[in-house]
Amino acid sequence: MRNIIIASTSTIHGSGYLDYILDDLKLFFNDAKNILFIPYARPSGISHDDYTEKASICFAKINKQVKSIHTFKNPIEAIKNAEAIFVGGGNTFVLTNQLHKNNLINALKTAINNGTPYLGTSAGSNICGLTIKTTNDMPIVYPPSFNALGFVPFNINPHYLDPDLTSKHMGETRETRIKEFHHFNTQPVIGLREGSWLKVTNNSIVLKGNLTARVFEYNKTPYEVGINTELNHLK
Amino acid sequence: MRNIIIASTSTIHGSGYLDYILDDLKLFFNDAKNILFIPYARPSGISHDDYTEKASICFAKINKQVKSIHTFKNPIEAIKNAEAIFVGGGNTFVLTNQLHKNNLINALKTAINNGTPYLGTSAGSNICGLTIKTTNDMPIVYPPSFNALGFVPFNINPHYLDPDLTSKHMGETRETRIKEFHHFNTQPVIGLREGSWLKVTNNSIVLKGNLTARVFEYNKTPYEVGINTELNHLK
Repeated sequence: MRNIIIASTSTIHGSGYLDYILDDLKLFFNDAKNILFIPYARPSGISHDDYTEKASICFAKINKQVKSIHTFKNPIEAIKNAEAIFVGGGNTFVLTNQLHKNNLINALKTAINNGTPYLGTSAGSNICGLTIKTTNDMPIVYPPSFNALGFVPFNINPHYLDPDLTSKHMGETRETRIKEFHHFNTQPVIGLREGSWLKVTNNSIVLKGNLTARVFEYNKTPYEVGINTELNHLK
Repeated sequence: MRNIIIASTSTIHGSGYLDYILDDLKLFFNDAKNILFIPYARPSGISHDDYTEKASICFAKINKQVKSIHTFKNPIEAIKNAEAIFVGGGNTFVLTNQLHKNNLINALKTAINNGTPYLGTSAGSNICGLTIKTTNDMPIVYPPSFNALGFVPFNINPHYLDPDLTSKHMGETRETRIKEFHHFNTQPVIGLREGSWLKVTNNSIVLKGNLTARVFEYNKTPYEVGINTELNHLK
């Protein structure tokens, strides 16, 4: 039985790290005392140690012990033996590259499909889709592949942002970028606004939080879905 | 003698395609009657034909004929024989992928280093740097490499955008992203605001337009440079 939370962001404006979702995480991680942290995405380039400390302080509030994968001799074994896994945000290319480098893609797939609870935020959510081709991040390293974990049969766009109609900037809006994606790819994309998450329970995929999400399907006009919508028919 | 224009954008807010730079282009392309257009970046996924028509209409204003590379049987020969080359904006990953696929990287390097005038805008400017690792684009296709043409000894960030201090969005600012880049790469990055361009004349690299540009050097505080600043010492 799969148990996955795919969150748009770790932090919403004006509150602390994971604060907005901590009550849900307490329930979600109910059966785990220890959480395996994967800090590879290194937001702002911070070290694995510093990032782990940040996660530890937060999870101590709900009485969870955090241990980071970079402190294990054998990271594949660490994933196999994990009671629960949290992959934090940062740069999706850096994260994907390190997962491939350490040969962890299959280990993660196996563990999570066998029921190890998984929390991803931002970059950690991007990798839950079919590919990382709808990340917002800068491609600061070249990973061996853009393929991702495929826990859901579509792509994720975290930190989804509506067009700023007053902007004089000529760079593409998020919607324009995702439409470009659909000139070269056919899978749906879910634009998750900050504060939203997808809750995957076995084969069910449900929108949570208190905002709508934007769904982009190939050759269709984008549309909004409300909270508690079942999304497992999308593919 | 190299002659290159590396422009942040094709279009500035409130004016037509290339309008802001057309007087300079007339001078720049003085010796060319025909311009070879490379439409591979396909902004908003438009077809090569439609994109070529857009460029043709614009260049007709300064009496230049535009012919697109996709209409030639042998694109390598088309580059070799070109009087001048224009690579338009769009998606940098799509552009880079197509250049590699058609085996055009070396042909472009040779032609431009031998003096064929080159105009790049946006994605067409990204590829003038050492790598495309500081593009703002979504990685909608997986190119065989992030290496670029290296006409300048640093990276370009086109459409450079200052942080919006009033924003409640938690996604990274452009400056944060470029600082992340410098945790994994050491070359400088030039943030070119819309309306700015670099003029490369042989070994000289000078900022043009009427805005300052932001320079990010490894392990240094970012700083602004004014118009007409010589940047060929950066590396």
